[in-house]
Amino acid sequence: MTADTPQVLIDGLQYCNWSRAIFEQMRQGGLAAVHATVGYHEGFRETVRHLVDWRTRFRDNEDLILLGRDGADIERARVTNRTAIFLGLQNPMPIEDDLGLVEMLFDLGIRFMQLTYNNQSLLGCGWMEKEDSGVTRMGREAIAEMNRLGMIIDLSHAGERTALEAIALSQKPVVISHANPRWLCGSNRNVSRTVMQALREKQGLLGLSLYPLHLANGSQTTLRQFGEMASAAAEIMGAEHLGVGSDLCQDQPDSVVRWMREGRWTRQANGAASFPPQPSWFVSNLDFPGLSEGLFSVGFSKAETSLVLGGAWHRFLVDSLPSA
Amino acid sequence: MTADTPQVLIDGLQYCNWSRAIFEQMRQGGLAAVHATVGYHEGFRETVRHLVDWRTRFRDNEDLILLGRDGADIERARVTNRTAIFLGLQNPMPIEDDLGLVEMLFDLGIRFMQLTYNNQSLLGCGWMEKEDSGVTRMGREAIAEMNRLGMIIDLSHAGERTALEAIALSQKPVVISHANPRWLCGSNRNVSRTVMQALREKQGLLGLSLYPLHLANGSQTTLRQFGEMASAAAEIMGAEHLGVGSDLCQDQPDSVVRWMREGRWTRQANGAASFPPQPSWFVSNLDFPGLSEGLFSVGFSKAETSLVLGGAWHRFLVDSLPSA
Repeated sequence: MTADTPQVLIDGLQYCNWSRAIFEQMRQGGLAAVHATVGYHEGFRETVRHLVDWRTRFRDNEDLILLGRDGADIERARVTNRTAIFLGLQNPMPIEDDLGLVEMLFDLGIRFMQLTYNNQSLLGCGWMEKEDSGVTRMGREAIAEMNRLGMIIDLSHAGERTALEAIALSQKPVVISHANPRWLCGSNRNVSRTVMQALREKQGLLGLSLYPLHLANGSQTTLRQFGEMASAAAEIMGAEHLGVGSDLCQDQPDSVVRWMREGRWTRQANGAASFPPQPSWFVSNLDFPGLSEGLFSVGFSKAETSLVLGGAWHRFLVDSLPSA
Repeated sequence: MTADTPQVLIDGLQYCNWSRAIFEQMRQGGLAAVHATVGYHEGFRETVRHLVDWRTRFRDNEDLILLGRDGADIERARVTNRTAIFLGLQNPMPIEDDLGLVEMLFDLGIRFMQLTYNNQSLLGCGWMEKEDSGVTRMGREAIAEMNRLGMIIDLSHAGERTALEAIALSQKPVVISHANPRWLCGSNRNVSRTVMQALREKQGLLGLSLYPLHLANGSQTTLRQFGEMASAAAEIMGAEHLGVGSDLCQDQPDSVVRWMREGRWTRQANGAASFPPQPSWFVSNLDFPGLSEGLFSVGFSKAETSLVLGGAWHRFLVDSLPSA
């Protein structure tokens, strides 16, 4: 970390093959907080099993990480030289069709939930479906319940209409934790200008993804191009509503990308069968502080860089999560 | 409530057909806290469903009850004229064979768990089995885990050997929340002098049951006989380790007694097919303060009565439950 490195570094999404080595890298990279995905297609019981595994990780690595429950935990982590891990779900499968499970999972530590993951869910439509019919009846209930509890609504992987309707329906700011401006990389997995504007108007936050398939030049994307993308995003979001959600999937076997894509809902191969190589400048948490160079290279000020690399997420989490 | 009524009234076990009417009776009876059974033979997922129902009850009746998480909640309930409900399990089925579920259930509000309910469980042996082989391998782990978390071990319904071994193994005081001295009513469901002495030596607590099948004269047992039973129990436990766990099953349909007895583990009728009538002097929470008369009639002092009707439970809960 250099004198130019912002103080509070936060990554708004990772799904690594968690290990002590990765938590050590989080510390070496100076991450104050990371939003970690707990699961994709797992139902309630399997998700609870993952949460049990997380408790074991927190105990076994208590010198490095702690369970983030509210915004104050970020400061608590920082002053004790640890990383606060905020847990989230990339799919609403864990709540089944039972609204009460939102509160149960909140109490067990879940702080983010996506309404959809690629496909139609019980709550809304993912970006891969042919037609997006928007937020469902149960989706409206889930949004209200998440608002009541202070669980953050994440619209990554949502279809356009579902995203816009959810932004409008939510009484609290929402996030798109890991996605990029669509006009710079044409995947519909990325977000349109319309969605970004709606997100910004409701004080939401966009986390920029470093997953190669979300980047204009894939694995070859340069750090300066990341800066240019951030600059384009900041034109709409402002640096104060912009962060990073790197989508880092470090050390995962390729079976995991198939699990993400195919779950148990298909027997067909569905998209990539292996993880693409990361850009050379972002392969682990060690590289997180270095993102500042990409931002500085396109003219971000120190204050703006500080916001994009964690300040905006920090403020969002402090404002959004109820005191534990 | 009369001037003689002790200040903090606590019932150490009820399994009513919960309703606003019953919560109103708790208030009218002046109960500061009640340990409420959440389930018997339900697995994890069904138990979570019950916990969701409890959350709804707490919201719908927030003027009358609150979820008890630690000892301070009793005082919080008292000063706001409400009853703190401490949730418990009469069987370890909800943790399946997964030790991690103890912590998950603790976080969702469970504060008591019996190691067994009548039959052999994965943790130990219930009183109805022909042979009690004691605390199992997983039982030792569960005891240590409950100790670590501060979940109270309840040995009601345990076999003699399992009870004695669990008392010895536990690093913290345990309870028998609802049972009576066996020599006054010969059911093995009640507790032997040996178990009571072991319980007392480890600073544990016995809650006296008012369930007719646990009483010497069943439904005809008099209030004075209750006092005599308390007096006999106090000779071993001392009033400071003696409470009430009424086992009140108010408003339950008879199908529930069959569920308790038969669960899903048998197709045979197993014991009573209907609830026996309650003694006339204890049919609802309204009657709780009147138990003091039974105690006074056999010579309990005001201070001792205060302990047996809630003071001992109060101190036990304050000492046992970690600050939430």
